[in-house]
Amino acid sequence: MSQEIYDVVVLGGGAGGVPAAIRAWQLGGKVAIVEARDLGGHCMNLGCIPFGHMMVASHIFKNLSLAKDMGLSVRDITINYPTLIKRQDEIIAFMRQGVRNTLKKNNVEVIEGRGRIAGKGALDVEGKSISCKKIILATGAQWQKPEFPGAELEEVVNTDFLITTKKLPQRVLLFGGSPWLLEIAQFLSHFGTQVTLATTLKRLLSKESKTIATRLRKVLNDEGIEIKTQATIEKVTKKKDGLTVELSAKEGLKEVVVDRIVTLERAAALKGIGLKTIGLDEESSFLAVNEKTETTAEGIYAIGDLTAPPEQHYSHRAAEMGIVAAENAMGKGTSLNPETLSRVLFTHPEVASIGLTPKEARGNGYEVIVGAAPLSMNPLGMILAEDEGIVEVVADKSYGEILGVHLIGTAVSEMIGEALMAIQTEATVYTLASTPFPHPTLSESLAEAARDALGNPIYLP
Amino acid sequence: MSQEIYDVVVLGGGAGGVPAAIRAWQLGGKVAIVEARDLGGHCMNLGCIPFGHMMVASHIFKNLSLAKDMGLSVRDITINYPTLIKRQDEIIAFMRQGVRNTLKKNNVEVIEGRGRIAGKGALDVEGKSISCKKIILATGAQWQKPEFPGAELEEVVNTDFLITTKKLPQRVLLFGGSPWLLEIAQFLSHFGTQVTLATTLKRLLSKESKTIATRLRKVLNDEGIEIKTQATIEKVTKKKDGLTVELSAKEGLKEVVVDRIVTLERAAALKGIGLKTIGLDEESSFLAVNEKTETTAEGIYAIGDLTAPPEQHYSHRAAEMGIVAAENAMGKGTSLNPETLSRVLFTHPEVASIGLTPKEARGNGYEVIVGAAPLSMNPLGMILAEDEGIVEVVADKSYGEILGVHLIGTAVSEMIGEALMAIQTEATVYTLASTPFPHPTLSESLAEAARDALGNPIYLP
Repeated sequence: MSQEIYDVVVLGGGAGGVPAAIRAWQLGGKVAIVEARDLGGHCMNLGCIPFGHMMVASHIFKNLSLAKDMGLSVRDITINYPTLIKRQDEIIAFMRQGVRNTLKKNNVEVIEGRGRIAGKGALDVEGKSISCKKIILATGAQWQKPEFPGAELEEVVNTDFLITTKKLPQRVLLFGGSPWLLEIAQFLSHFGTQVTLATTLKRLLSKESKTIATRLRKVLNDEGIEIKTQATIEKVTKKKDGLTVELSAKEGLKEVVVDRIVTLERAAALKGIGLKTIGLDEESSFLAVNEKTETTAEGIYAIGDLTAPPEQHYSHRAAEMGIVAAENAMGKGTSLNPETLSRVLFTHPEVASIGLTPKEARGNGYEVIVGAAPLSMNPLGMILAEDEGIVEVVADKSYGEILGVHLIGTAVSEMIGEALMAIQTEATVYTLASTPFPHPTLSESLAEAARDALGNPIYLP
Repeated sequence: MSQEIYDVVVLGGGAGGVPAAIRAWQLGGKVAIVEARDLGGHCMNLGCIPFGHMMVASHIFKNLSLAKDMGLSVRDITINYPTLIKRQDEIIAFMRQGVRNTLKKNNVEVIEGRGRIAGKGALDVEGKSISCKKIILATGAQWQKPEFPGAELEEVVNTDFLITTKKLPQRVLLFGGSPWLLEIAQFLSHFGTQVTLATTLKRLLSKESKTIATRLRKVLNDEGIEIKTQATIEKVTKKKDGLTVELSAKEGLKEVVVDRIVTLERAAALKGIGLKTIGLDEESSFLAVNEKTETTAEGIYAIGDLTAPPEQHYSHRAAEMGIVAAENAMGKGTSLNPETLSRVLFTHPEVASIGLTPKEARGNGYEVIVGAAPLSMNPLGMILAEDEGIVEVVADKSYGEILGVHLIGTAVSEMIGEALMAIQTEATVYTLASTPFPHPTLSESLAEAARDALGNPIYLP
């Protein structure tokens, strides 16, 4: 029997690889997907889904103080952590089986094992040779060992630890530059851990609008999370009662005693997948691609975390790129729209944004108009006690182009889709201002912020 | 001093009248608003806001069973109804003051008293004559006495009763055709009232997609609400232990014993506002207007509940019409887009929809494609236990025009804004299918349902 030749082989069965493989089959391809570990990748197994589950628990917990104000009597809530973990493990197992079934239904062959490129049109999966016309690289990102004195201690862990532990630690230092540390800080704090959050950045959420970042900082602060910025770890000493950490930060020197230091450092997984065999660089920080997701090597596409710095490691970015890569690999010219990448954080209140901050927009040379509608002035927002919620709309003055939308509040991870849809359809701020969002919803404030940007808010005081 | 002549006088200071007055001032008008009772109208004082508040309490209550599955221990929750009512009264008082301040800031004169048209360009407010160039009628709707044997009994009440009572009744019959009865049924049921929900219609939510309506019925049914359809009240007898009601329904004859019968019947408030003086009909069921909100009388505009049958009594419709009316009254030609009216119901799960059901679309002669994505297959949906959640997208096969979107699930009142934005911008189902909604959100299922309509879902089994 002669060797099969695949139209497309996808290396990596995660958030990007799975839709890439399915889409390639839908377009008539003979397709295989190679995965060394669990189908679903980091997002499903160790990222968005388990932490999304934890954040939902965290939100319900937080809503109990609102409940109390509404006359709903509740006893102080406590968490049975093994029950939480068991439920999320079951959901993830179900989802993993779902991915397997969907790949099967779409005739995608799943090849288990570690794959690497073995030259043009050739892959090797643990000794087995595979021939194909196109390769889509979707190996994601991998954990990086942090670099500070004491980083080698066993009490220094990454966030995987929270998924396997049976008991939450009493005192934790979260250290690094990732925005997702804020979710974890809040989750731990809600369920009784004493949290110090030390960011290496100038401020929390340094890539987000200051309006939003300041408000989230206030919430975290009010909840008792100690926040340090521009932080470095000077020294870690292991003692009987925990780790003594000397922390240097903008707020001054501080010694904290904790049970764990949790870091969240990931980088594109470029090594060991044979990039050199086709002339690609495996030493850079990520693999650059064009708007068709093509690498500089012919017939080789790359998608997802592999192709971006950590702050863009969103699985919806990976999924979108997967579909674009598959369509290009199958000869259908499709391009990415870089303006439609939204950013979400499942803190309470949630943070969601798209496009440029006011400062970035000005820096890019636009004549900028900015409008804002606090959710504390929104009817549903008052009911939900959205004290720190706000909608900020950034637009170009000349043509009304929507340049950015920045949200903090309940369910803004769903609401940001409205801004996304506006940007996707190239709607102007005038259109946004006249969109009759239903009442009472937080979405109404999106239209009001747009009207504010245009100088004619209806409801703002 | 000669009498002042207003450019615009708005009759009614509710959800439509307030934005109308403010917008007219923004466009350079001298404006007054006439209100006989509380600023904010029915929505703010007796409708969306108090019931929105109750539904938020109801949602938090419902989420406690999810919390339990997640390992969050809670004691059976109880409600202190006076505390709930006190909080919502305070919010409403704050909002009313906010409306007053915003009107003041925008130089809108508030004239207190009952107003009526006294001829072309003339109004009378309790004896005071007012001259104006344009009138915007925004008197809303008013309670209708139901017509069944026994309707005159004091135990037969409308929903205002829930806002003033100190204690929830033990057994209630909700009777009528309004979709909002479903919210009230669920609220009462969650907080211990035994509820019979008797709709006069063929099925619950008869104007909504059957897919959605069937799922909500199942939820209400599972919660212990007894549901009757095509119901009529044959006889009500007042006895010592309550009202004995003979109910005839599709499900058969049934005698129920209740403490209260609650109805929700409202109709356009056409009477007593002087319509006859300018040749308008006050005997019809509502006042018809064109796409500019003009009545057939020159210079007289009408907006909101006054202009529609009860199933369109949405305050966001009133607010949108208010702005359109003000812009036309001030000489700026603006038109309503009837396709952007969304419908929302704050049950748990919420229901939200826009446009045509599959059946309506077929009835209108379209060649229809329909796609559906159950939220039980959506990653966040699995976490939230969205067993009955679904997204349904209805499109025209030839051009991909989005004809309708139908949602049931958590926070779909915010999500429907995405569909609204798509329809507002005339985006096709192809655009919706390729919109990269953030992960993990329920919104992702909107794109998946669009892909399903096109025959190429990525994640559906």
